[in-house]
Amino acid sequence: MPGSSKPLLSVLSGGNPGVTPIWLMRQAGRYLPEYRELRARKGGFLELVYDAEAAAEITLQPIRRFGFDGAILFSDILIVPHALGQDLRFEAGEGPRLTPPLVDASLAALERVPARLEPIYRTVEKVAARLPGETTLLGFAGSPWTVATYMVAGQGSREQAEARRFAYADPDAFAAIIDAISELTVDYLSGQIAAGVEAVQLFDSWSGSLSPDQFRRWVIAPTARIVAKLKARHPGTPVIGFPKGAGARLEAYARETGVDALGLDETIDPDWAVRVLPENLPLQGNLDPLALLAGGAALETAVGRILSSFQGRPHIFNLGHGIIKETPIAHVERLLELVRR
Amino acid sequence: MPGSSKPLLSVLSGGNPGVTPIWLMRQAGRYLPEYRELRARKGGFLELVYDAEAAAEITLQPIRRFGFDGAILFSDILIVPHALGQDLRFEAGEGPRLTPPLVDASLAALERVPARLEPIYRTVEKVAARLPGETTLLGFAGSPWTVATYMVAGQGSREQAEARRFAYADPDAFAAIIDAISELTVDYLSGQIAAGVEAVQLFDSWSGSLSPDQFRRWVIAPTARIVAKLKARHPGTPVIGFPKGAGARLEAYARETGVDALGLDETIDPDWAVRVLPENLPLQGNLDPLALLAGGAALETAVGRILSSFQGRPHIFNLGHGIIKETPIAHVERLLELVRR
Repeated sequence: MPGSSKPLLSVLSGGNPGVTPIWLMRQAGRYLPEYRELRARKGGFLELVYDAEAAAEITLQPIRRFGFDGAILFSDILIVPHALGQDLRFEAGEGPRLTPPLVDASLAALERVPARLEPIYRTVEKVAARLPGETTLLGFAGSPWTVATYMVAGQGSREQAEARRFAYADPDAFAAIIDAISELTVDYLSGQIAAGVEAVQLFDSWSGSLSPDQFRRWVIAPTARIVAKLKARHPGTPVIGFPKGAGARLEAYARETGVDALGLDETIDPDWAVRVLPENLPLQGNLDPLALLAGGAALETAVGRILSSFQGRPHIFNLGHGIIKETPIAHVERLLELVRR
Repeated sequence: MPGSSKPLLSVLSGGNPGVTPIWLMRQAGRYLPEYRELRARKGGFLELVYDAEAAAEITLQPIRRFGFDGAILFSDILIVPHALGQDLRFEAGEGPRLTPPLVDASLAALERVPARLEPIYRTVEKVAARLPGETTLLGFAGSPWTVATYMVAGQGSREQAEARRFAYADPDAFAAIIDAISELTVDYLSGQIAAGVEAVQLFDSWSGSLSPDQFRRWVIAPTARIVAKLKARHPGTPVIGFPKGAGARLEAYARETGVDALGLDETIDPDWAVRVLPENLPLQGNLDPLALLAGGAALETAVGRILSSFQGRPHIFNLGHGIIKETPIAHVERLLELVRR
């Protein structure tokens, strides 16, 4: 696929499209007035995720407005624990709640509900049918460690202390949770690919809090297993790994997981990444979302620095993590001008 | 001082005392029953910090119980903003509050109260007079970036977004805040040294959230200035830098700030640190506080890994960050056995 007419897919497959492709994490979401309008009309976040028509429309909104090179499926990483049998709610202003949390209940007691994954595949099909020919459709899932932090604590948790403590106290029970998530994640991403996504990203938002041995056991090893199984089923579909906060451990992650491309968070020095990471590995990132929020000189300087550091190597422009909901539309427009000029 | 009879000071000065010295961040605090008893009798946290007799007693408690090689002054990094003129309160269960926050008020409007630093020097004098001959007395301050995050937001803040945003939007005003903190920090640490501390640690708890350019400007540059000024006034006193969350940027921090030793948080792979950081730089750390909390096999394995990785290089055993208040005393006793056998 180096000859793909889709610039983003081309970079992921080792090609050079001449201009840096760009998409933004959380580009389908709350900073867009058209998203806020649709959400106000249709109801809560999870209702939108499970409404394939609404989710497809939301996925397409930023493509219509900005013409990003990638469309990322509008969904959530907690669909997997929901399908593993936990109840899932998003309370306004409170973040997600999974019940029962696995600090209190055993994994074996959960009754699986694989049908909860089906509407997501319908969303993918709808988006695939409507997407412009040059746009790459991206699927995603959470990585097992990050998903496990929510399953164990039942919610977001400070420094992921509940899950880290659980993993030290009962590594066998924790491994069973990681394995269950991993297995379903392979099926889930495989289903997304069968429905039409052209590449997938594994989000490991909380990999940063783990000690080195725990990082190898709960981040690198399960990611490597997922990548290997996906490659066996879908040899041509690139996998982007995004271990946020991994810092210097990105090097081991890049060399040992088998991912085809690496997302960098905004704390990573691009010059360090270019120097240390495998030479031909496509890198994605890594504008500070706060520089995009600030705009002006802060934005121009930061974008210029990133483009010049990654020049001459496969690079997909992105933020270091999700766009902040207060970000002005005009700043996103300016970002696109800067990257594409 | 390589010939110092104090093992911790000896390592900081390039000596080899034969056995790895150990102290723990937050070793004077809430996991100790004798601390909880004294606090219940005496009142709030800040009252204890400003009561030199109580603060000296608290500093000495873990030395009496465990015989750590270092005694760290019982105090708080927010004493500096307090002396810069913000009001400081610690509400139960809420964390610190500084008013007015500098998102709302200008630095110039604050009225400085340098006398607020005086009781801390009295604490140092009392501890110095009572400390066993082999124990090293450590002073500390927050690094300007970390202190600024509290001064700007008026409290702890998620990913330090207020301060990072302020720094992008008005870098000159932010630089003035950093400079004011830096200047007072030099005086404050200098005062601690004059009163009897033998080494100082700069805590940069929130350095991890900054983008690479911001890290250079707000972490490395001010730290280098503070170290240079301290060295000019107190050439023999070692400075330990602890930029928590710095990840791969530890390398630049180690080479460019002039610190005499480097604290490593628990996410740093000791093998990476030994390979990449300057050869003779003493390293301090980096047991996961959750492994100490867990005890048992998790503790034995983690301690063994750290000791063997740092073998043959100047090393001070410590946690990767502060001890967790639920940590059993027996686990700390076991840790000391493992490190000293």
